[in-house]
Amino acid sequence: VYRLKELAALVGGKVVGDGETRISEAAPFEAASEGAITFAASDRLIAQVESSDASAIIVPSGDYASAKALLVVDQPKVAFAKILARLTQKPFIATGISELASIGRACEIAEAVSIHPFVRLADGVSIGSGVTLHPGVSIGKGCVVGEECTLHSNVVLYPGVRLGARVTIHAGTVLGSDGFGYVFDHNHQLKIPQTGRVEVGNDVEIGANCAIDRATFGATVVEDHVKIDNLVHIAHNCRIGANTVIVGCCGISGSVEIGRNCILAGQVGIADHIRVGDNVKILARAAVFKDVPSNSTISGTPARDHREELRAQAALRRLPELRRRLRSRGDEERDR
Amino acid sequence: VYRLKELAALVGGKVVGDGETRISEAAPFEAASEGAITFAASDRLIAQVESSDASAIIVPSGDYASAKALLVVDQPKVAFAKILARLTQKPFIATGISELASIGRACEIAEAVSIHPFVRLADGVSIGSGVTLHPGVSIGKGCVVGEECTLHSNVVLYPGVRLGARVTIHAGTVLGSDGFGYVFDHNHQLKIPQTGRVEVGNDVEIGANCAIDRATFGATVVEDHVKIDNLVHIAHNCRIGANTVIVGCCGISGSVEIGRNCILAGQVGIADHIRVGDNVKILARAAVFKDVPSNSTISGTPARDHREELRAQAALRRLPELRRRLRSRGDEERDR
Amino acid sequence: VYRLKELAALVGGKVVGDGETRISEAAPFEAASEGAITFAASDRLIAQVESSDASAIIVPSGDYASAKALLVVDQPKVAFAKILARLTQKPFIATGISELASIGRACEIAEAVSIHPFVRLADGVSIGSGVTLHPGVSIGKGCVVGEECTLHSNVVLYPGVRLGARVTIHAGTVLGSDGFGYVFDHNHQLKIPQTGRVEVGNDVEIGANCAIDRATFGATVVEDHVKIDNLVHIAHNCRIGANTVIVGCCGISGSVEIGRNCILAGQVGIADHIRVGDNVKILARAAVFKDVPSNSTISGTPARDHREELRAQAALRRLPELRRRLRSRGDEERDR
Repeated sequence: VYRLKELAALVGGKVVGDGETRISEAAPFEAASEGAITFAASDRLIAQVESSDASAIIVPSGDYASAKALLVVDQPKVAFAKILARLTQKPFIATGISELASIGRACEIAEAVSIHPFVRLADGVSIGSGVTLHPGVSIGKGCVVGEECTLHSNVVLYPGVRLGARVTIHAGTVLGSDGFGYVFDHNHQLKIPQTGRVEVGNDVEIGANCAIDRATFGATVVEDHVKIDNLVHIAHNCRIGANTVIVGCCGISGSVEIGRNCILAGQVGIADHIRVGDNVKILARAAVFKDVPSNSTISGTPARDHREELRAQAALRRLPELRRRLRSRGDEERDR
Repeated sequence: VYRLKELAALVGGKVVGDGETRISEAAPFEAASEGAITFAASDRLIAQVESSDASAIIVPSGDYASAKALLVVDQPKVAFAKILARLTQKPFIATGISELASIGRACEIAEAVSIHPFVRLADGVSIGSGVTLHPGVSIGKGCVVGEECTLHSNVVLYPGVRLGARVTIHAGTVLGSDGFGYVFDHNHQLKIPQTGRVEVGNDVEIGANCAIDRATFGATVVEDHVKIDNLVHIAHNCRIGANTVIVGCCGISGSVEIGRNCILAGQVGIADHIRVGDNVKILARAAVFKDVPSNSTISGTPARDHREELRAQAALRRLPELRRRLRSRGDEERDR
Repeated sequence: VYRLKELAALVGGKVVGDGETRISEAAPFEAASEGAITFAASDRLIAQVESSDASAIIVPSGDYASAKALLVVDQPKVAFAKILARLTQKPFIATGISELASIGRACEIAEAVSIHPFVRLADGVSIGSGVTLHPGVSIGKGCVVGEECTLHSNVVLYPGVRLGARVTIHAGTVLGSDGFGYVFDHNHQLKIPQTGRVEVGNDVEIGANCAIDRATFGATVVEDHVKIDNLVHIAHNCRIGANTVIVGCCGISGSVEIGRNCILAGQVGIADHIRVGDNVKILARAAVFKDVPSNSTISGTPARDHREELRAQAALRRLPELRRRLRSRGDEERDR
């Protein structure tokens, strides 16, 4: 339980009303009851502040005269996320290395770790302090797992994968599988050995059942603060720029470079060797077949500027009518 | 081995011919040989009944004068599925808890279970009677697994997941991974803690390598009798209505609500917060960006009424010709 | 370290310059330094041969007068792949069966195998010589794994799966999960028992987190030399012809037959019961709803001949302009 003024200090906000209000949980607006803090970001919700059952409400900057305890901040949703994290955080408890784990030779494992049953570390693995390896995690030779990483159940790191600090990987995800490289030799596809690795920066989160391939040479790179959803495929030699967000079911082909602060919505596909600039928004289901300049918003298959795509979609919707009109005019002309 | 009359009783059908015919297996029409029962649902196959090698044939209601033993029912394919199930069923044999499994504290495990090697149950897990947990299954704190569930190898349940009775989850599937929720705070994506859970009803089947995220608050819900194919992604806070069928490779964004008795064909995508009514058919590869009323059939990207989409596709196919016509008419006009 | 003349013998090429040149690694053109061999396949790179730091360069047939040691071959990329494989190959070392593996009854396991911790073999499994089973692999009853197969961590084979020789399966992939077969019985989907199996030929490679379902009856078949990328879904009763390549995120519905030497680019979808001929190219993101004759190249949704699709896309891009023209001409006509 926190007092509202403590939470205000945490997020750098201003209390309107009783700073001693006791807060035990954070909840969405409709579900917030006594003891809870919630947030009202839209005008619609701000208008309902008085009738909320919440004990305190986070609101955007403005003038308020309210019977409710309010917490005024610049970015209510950000403040809410921080307060929710504080209210629900569990301290890391190092349970050590399970007797049912299997540890290879020459591993360097920090003291404060939680390595669960049926985890396998191959030889020469390095595990930082504060790391949790859930059951069934399998880590290949020479991998490096930075401080405070969490690898959920059945995550697989192939040999040589390197994770920075505070990386979270959800269950079933595979890093470092062979890139899909073949060359046609007479009748068969001949495998091109995949000798590179995967490097992941700090503060990255990767969803469940993803696959990120190792590079043919060098490294497939996921930079700091990248966030990746479930069932995403990232092929060999890609580079994903810092802060970029990749939503579920995207497929990114080999040697694609994506800049910083991009957003790839769900089910996006990108062809091989494409360069995507910084601050690019690729809307859901777009298929990208050519380079994308920074600061653009694209959509469609093949993807193009989103406004162009909208115009084409609108024209397409009116196409049956256009054909009718053209046909009837043709008849008129013949009649003349 | 069953006698045909016994199988007729099982499915509520009527025997034409020898009810004592002995049936040892069920097979598709072309492959059925002596001892087998098969079914003929189409006129084409019904015409071939006499020349089949099967010992008995399930046919739809009608008048038959046949030298073959026939089993007449309302729904031949349903009857065939039931008979096939009866002929191939294996009784559940409880092998108990493997010595190579790892069981947490305060778990409640029914007597008649099969818990295979390398299964890990965290603390406070409840496992019902008749449950099979295949090798490598990992079940988080406080999960509830109902009676007669089967979790295939390497299935992962995060903490707090609840499964009803007779749920089958295929290998590698993950339930309860964090929802993909962030809010942009200055330069970085700040994680919104995902505090909810996943709730699955009775008689649900989920394919291999799927991912179903926990809710931010409350629950992501999969209702009774839902059937989900392989590699399907269901994001946080979705609700999938009873009896709905989701075919492979679909991606369903956050907070989507899908009604009862819907069919999502392969590779469908649904944008966040969309509401889909009951009895909706979403055809393969459709991308759904707006709410869908009950009883509709939609297709395309963006998805719309299927007949409209067909008209637009037809017009699109004729578009090059339309341009040619328009251009030549422009020439005529200039010539006048 | 090899001498260039030894590598020339390996790939059947001709040395121009010093055959005694010592080669310790293979690298891409830009990264190749002393001791490395690289390849120049394009005119652009061939023009830069003299300025490369590589100790030797593989070039296509032609006349060369060079201070560099050259290796002249018909297919430089093929020769490079073979030399890279030779330079990076690691001999198979049989580590035997880990004490932390769990082996069922009546298994036939060759002497020279590496079975890692937390591998589970059910009863009656057959494992050939030279096989590596990485941690967490789970193999069902009666499976057959041919010689020199490699199954990466957490691969799952359901009962009855058969793999030929030299098959590589990447981490998290599932073979033999139930086909997605139901029949609607009054209010619910009734499961059709899936009694078939999965058969994989020789020299097949399958990526990470794929799912290949068993057949309802008979077998889902992946023929020799097929190469499959990550996150691919192959439904029950499919047959994938020899040498065919399936790129990441494809979804192939039930009972699809694909011929030999086909290429399915990324995110392709194929509807059920479709027949695809030999030597077919299906371009990225295509959705295939009808049979495809041999030797065709198709694209689009719905997929059609690629040249037709290009024409339609071009017409679609000009559609807004077409509408404007039509509208202004209508005005002219009214004005006349």
